[in-house]
Amino acid sequence: MAELSQRGIVATTGLIAHGRGEAYDYLLGEMTVPEGEKAEEVAAAHLLEAVNPVISVNGNAAALCAEEIISLAEAVPAKMEVNLFHRSEKRIEAVCSYMESMGAKRILGRRPDARLEGITSDRALCTREGIHSADVVLVPLEDGDRAEALMAAGKVAIAIDLNPLSRTSRTATVSVVDEVTRAIPNIERFVSELRSHPDKRRRLIRDFDNQANLKGVARRICSHLVEDIDQGKA
Amino acid sequence: MAELSQRGIVATTGLIAHGRGEAYDYLLGEMTVPEGEKAEEVAAAHLLEAVNPVISVNGNAAALCAEEIISLAEAVPAKMEVNLFHRSEKRIEAVCSYMESMGAKRILGRRPDARLEGITSDRALCTREGIHSADVVLVPLEDGDRAEALMAAGKVAIAIDLNPLSRTSRTATVSVVDEVTRAIPNIERFVSELRSHPDKRRRLIRDFDNQANLKGVARRICSHLVEDIDQGKA
Repeated sequence: MAELSQRGIVATTGLIAHGRGEAYDYLLGEMTVPEGEKAEEVAAAHLLEAVNPVISVNGNAAALCAEEIISLAEAVPAKMEVNLFHRSEKRIEAVCSYMESMGAKRILGRRPDARLEGITSDRALCTREGIHSADVVLVPLEDGDRAEALMAAGKVAIAIDLNPLSRTSRTATVSVVDEVTRAIPNIERFVSELRSHPDKRRRLIRDFDNQANLKGVARRICSHLVEDIDQGKA
Repeated sequence: MAELSQRGIVATTGLIAHGRGEAYDYLLGEMTVPEGEKAEEVAAAHLLEAVNPVISVNGNAAALCAEEIISLAEAVPAKMEVNLFHRSEKRIEAVCSYMESMGAKRILGRRPDARLEGITSDRALCTREGIHSADVVLVPLEDGDRAEALMAAGKVAIAIDLNPLSRTSRTATVSVVDEVTRAIPNIERFVSELRSHPDKRRRLIRDFDNQANLKGVARRICSHLVEDIDQGKA
């Protein structure tokens, strides 16, 4: 992360955001909890059911798991679009080039030609071919505003966010509370498993209760906190 | 933080550490909880009872609350010593100069002439006049190794750390689980209140149970997590 911050791929605020994620991951026991895995399975179902699925890529996501994102995008298949919170032409180019250097054949986002309603500023910029016309958008490590705007635009928003209380987690259709380098390969594994099972995909989507799943994560963090201290580790 | 990172005062890893702190602060409700305040009172008692109290200053502590640290050091009075996890002559000088530019009259740490046992590498370097001969050391935002080494050297270590499960929090004599810009002024307020009450200071020190206090913080974070989600905020 430090190196990619020097290269302009990760923003300074991205480093702080990464730290926040580390804290929640620690509280989760630095592993995929059952609620995370359930959300990953439902995320895979949505990606396979989509007409135009898009993976939104920001600096942190690129820095942490470019290869995993590219592999998932090819597996679904889904488009990839670079979308930055701290947007500048230079950073957009840096992140796009970095993804290409990691093997991405096609990255949208260099020349946005549409806007997402409900977000002011340059962060609304997106492409007509990608996020603007997408029916399902996977947003790893995204801010709450964008998740809300995607939902308001009638899209299925799949968030990957380690904080179960974040606005992103509370807003998204499916909130994957897991570390992104574990989450993306897990979603890809479920994409393979569910590819030839459309009935199971639809059942998974229908039966999933995102709020209940988030509650489960919060309770798990809690027991971790209290158990650790009670077991005299403190 | 971003600006002071550019100036070399905050390390890249310091930005990530700051993010971890933000996550825990969010879980505390971004306020001083009663257990934090209790630890702050006991910290003040220790600082006043000390023969040679020292405040250890690192890049993040300087960046976040240089003035508050200087004010506390003058109130006790205590010495200040710059001590970095990622030590380089350039950063030591940057942090010392920054503290001086914020009003510090005397900052130890530029010319270390002693070592703290139990830590390998340059992080062991300290001054004979300061941390090496201190009986009470206040270590805001410190790593677990240093807290352990201070304790092993028979010193009273007062940590300020937002993670109640961190090795620093688990190791220190007094673990203040609070945000540093709230904690330092609170400690200074208790220094004023306890200055002419030596009996109360000794009673506070004698009666304080750090582990029980940490358990209280963990339970509080828990209820915050579960209540927030249960109250339909999620």
